[in-house]
Amino acid sequence: MNKSTIGHALTAHAKTVGDIDLADIARFDRFHVAEDGMLLDYSRHWIDEEIWQLLSQYADAADLSGARALLFAGGLVNKSEGRAALHPATRGSPGGDTSQQEIIRKQQTHMAQTIEDWHGRGICQVLHIGIGGSHLGPSLVVDALAKPEMAKRCRFLTSHDAAQRARLVDDLDLKTTAVVIVSKSFTTGETIENARLVRELYQHQNLDPSSYFYAVTAVPEKAQEWGIDQGHILSILPEIGGRYSLWSSVGITAAWAIGVKAFEQLRAGARAMDQHFLSRPWDQNMPVIMALLGIWYRNFLDQRAHIIAPYHDGLRLLPPFLQQLEMESNGKRVDQFGELLNHKTVPVLLGLPGTDCQHAFFQALHQGTDVIGVDFILTKTSTRALQAHGLAQGQALMVGHKDPDPERTCPGHRPSTTLVLDDLSPHHLGRLLALYEHKTFVQGVIWGVNSFDQMGVELGKRIARDLLERLEGADQLRTDDTHDRLDGSTAGLLRYLRKPSLS
Amino acid sequence: MNKSTIGHALTAHAKTVGDIDLADIARFDRFHVAEDGMLLDYSRHWIDEEIWQLLSQYADAADLSGARALLFAGGLVNKSEGRAALHPATRGSPGGDTSQQEIIRKQQTHMAQTIEDWHGRGICQVLHIGIGGSHLGPSLVVDALAKPEMAKRCRFLTSHDAAQRARLVDDLDLKTTAVVIVSKSFTTGETIENARLVRELYQHQNLDPSSYFYAVTAVPEKAQEWGIDQGHILSILPEIGGRYSLWSSVGITAAWAIGVKAFEQLRAGARAMDQHFLSRPWDQNMPVIMALLGIWYRNFLDQRAHIIAPYHDGLRLLPPFLQQLEMESNGKRVDQFGELLNHKTVPVLLGLPGTDCQHAFFQALHQGTDVIGVDFILTKTSTRALQAHGLAQGQALMVGHKDPDPERTCPGHRPSTTLVLDDLSPHHLGRLLALYEHKTFVQGVIWGVNSFDQMGVELGKRIARDLLERLEGADQLRTDDTHDRLDGSTAGLLRYLRKPSLS
Repeated sequence: MNKSTIGHALTAHAKTVGDIDLADIARFDRFHVAEDGMLLDYSRHWIDEEIWQLLSQYADAADLSGARALLFAGGLVNKSEGRAALHPATRGSPGGDTSQQEIIRKQQTHMAQTIEDWHGRGICQVLHIGIGGSHLGPSLVVDALAKPEMAKRCRFLTSHDAAQRARLVDDLDLKTTAVVIVSKSFTTGETIENARLVRELYQHQNLDPSSYFYAVTAVPEKAQEWGIDQGHILSILPEIGGRYSLWSSVGITAAWAIGVKAFEQLRAGARAMDQHFLSRPWDQNMPVIMALLGIWYRNFLDQRAHIIAPYHDGLRLLPPFLQQLEMESNGKRVDQFGELLNHKTVPVLLGLPGTDCQHAFFQALHQGTDVIGVDFILTKTSTRALQAHGLAQGQALMVGHKDPDPERTCPGHRPSTTLVLDDLSPHHLGRLLALYEHKTFVQGVIWGVNSFDQMGVELGKRIARDLLERLEGADQLRTDDTHDRLDGSTAGLLRYLRKPSLS
Repeated sequence: MNKSTIGHALTAHAKTVGDIDLADIARFDRFHVAEDGMLLDYSRHWIDEEIWQLLSQYADAADLSGARALLFAGGLVNKSEGRAALHPATRGSPGGDTSQQEIIRKQQTHMAQTIEDWHGRGICQVLHIGIGGSHLGPSLVVDALAKPEMAKRCRFLTSHDAAQRARLVDDLDLKTTAVVIVSKSFTTGETIENARLVRELYQHQNLDPSSYFYAVTAVPEKAQEWGIDQGHILSILPEIGGRYSLWSSVGITAAWAIGVKAFEQLRAGARAMDQHFLSRPWDQNMPVIMALLGIWYRNFLDQRAHIIAPYHDGLRLLPPFLQQLEMESNGKRVDQFGELLNHKTVPVLLGLPGTDCQHAFFQALHQGTDVIGVDFILTKTSTRALQAHGLAQGQALMVGHKDPDPERTCPGHRPSTTLVLDDLSPHHLGRLLALYEHKTFVQGVIWGVNSFDQMGVELGKRIARDLLERLEGADQLRTDDTHDRLDGSTAGLLRYLRKPSLS
């Protein structure tokens, strides 16, 4: 069957999902996968055998196997930028040619040596300057795996915000701090500006920045030009997208905080998930299962939001990490040939650690007017109380509650996924993050988008340069502020921002 | 016109919003409000004069004025719990009778005296134990207004997570720490369990907990029973809901961190917004404007998500705070009479501080398939670069970009609100938070829901108690785990969680 025939069949099935008995005792055995200390329970979803088969065929109709092979062969999956996506290779999985794999090995060695140098030099803190993909992955890993006393020694400076700089930089002892500037292009506005300001702090204390500053970039010559010592420049391949880069030298701050050995285990965990994704049939393949469920709800049941609820303090940055991973990768409206899509792509993602989310916005999941799916992520090593709450939310959403008082009634029949990790070890965290990477890839393939570019963010950057000139320029309104280049709102806001404050 | 006639007219207008020229130079003058150091620009929205008039009439048809009067008269707005909502009164606005207002004044005095005692006793840290509404508001205020060195001395312990406790408690010097247990009912599972565990730490160090422990609760006798000294119990009125409670004694940790005077200014700012909400006509009334725009997009244009993008490091907790405020208040599906609603209620909210969000998920706003509205929040005292980026995103979403390359094209015509505060002072933060409180109230009135209860969260708590027993009970599967009380998924997950780990 082709994609459109299967789509029609799925549309027909979508009308009957209310009849599926999610609580059926036999469903768990059919709809779960357990492997290598990780369980994926997808039995609480609006699927039955027939729907599941159709979804699998939908993946086949999009040639998922072919796309997967292309990814792991280092093929041209990022067409708009004319590039492969080599993040699997950064953790030792297939992808790229031998020379690229050799470069990756050298980069890993360079990273490990740099960390050893830091130990030898008495580096006690790392100031990591980067934003977006240069920040979210490493800071998630630090939060998840570093001991609290090491996590406190990692500072992540991201934005053009003086308040953030004051909070993160003012109390640092600069002479025991390594400064790592992470920017693939080495032109990211926020990052280079923050680097410049921190360099001034070093200079004011008569410390030689070249001894403390490091760069992680795909354009080493730019870093050198900026003043970073050649030996302090850790390179990454241009084929590594920011949001897929934590496994590369971009992860240096995390590798320092958790130790190079643990960082290797993290990479090995991701590698294990690569193997899983490469080798398992669709209905035992965790990323494929999660991706297909997402497609089902998004494209056939019109759901537009998805919740990430990790029941582990160490995963509190997982929701923003996945917001970037999924929404930047698949927040697209044209296919790889530039044709406008006639279906919806990525939903919005949001989340908070459980049980915080239960006391925050879960009310809307239980009794709101939209059905919103949830990924519950539990670990076997958590307290029983935390596990009980995680389990209970999924059960409550599913079974609901009838009450004489309609205000106490919960409709139930609301779907969720439960992932259980043996523990939050480097290995399992690596698997978990790679699981979502591949889920994102599979959805990109089915939606037909390029998951590896982010053309939509360029426009705002360009406009910001123009507006900054206008804000910094004359104190008076520039004559062309009312020119046809400027809309009424922007002109009005510029005028207002230039006026002195009341208070 | 009645609500349904206006609704039909709005539905007709919804079909033509694509024709509205958002960039029109005259729109800013018509569609903005500036007052007391705060600007609200709502000119980049899919409204024109006629739509705006209809929306205003929609508010009238829901008797917004009457509902507002009831709120500020301390009337029965929370019918299911048989209560008023007296949060305006906690900041000195009307609401409640003279005796309740007198109690509130005494509570404020007690809070200020307690803080003075702490200064006298050399308290250097506050461990605040609470979750949800007992946590999000105070921690937001600390992040936004406290000096970094004071913010570090405030620890917020929320959940049943041993990893969180280790991170936040292990390095505390207990004998200079005040422990504040915040629970309206003094029965919140997470909070009481955490309090118990921290009390054990004090006992192990031979420190008398009764000298260090404080409670904030509406049920003082329960706190006393638990072992809190009577003089250490700060009471709150039962008419203060958790997510509306930061202005009361619940804010004690924030008041300690920023100083009682600044906390008074925060309350005065909220009071100023109460006055604004009470006195301005709808089209100069900020909370009403924001609420009506939300209703327009949600109920007539089928938008289901809303982004909060504060361009200030100090507002990084605003998105989770507003998630709770709006989604817990209005995530309901029955009206105050228990009738099932035939319209949608609260959308999902998400956000990250700018410019981080630009480098994370804004791709999906610019080029994704759903239109999602954004609140940009800027301050006049931020760096020009940060302001330029905030302005640029709103402009980019609106004007879009045509490109020969379809992958670089941004469709534009995407709506956003811009709020500009003179600075992030206590006064303006108070106004900002009260603005969203009243926006939430107005939407609740129009949707016809009770914004002040949260019946949907009870079911999960009840189930969790049952599951905890099963998890903690016998090591073996309990015979009734396959009983009809348990669905297949819950039974399977319980079995899996009880099995020893692989790793």
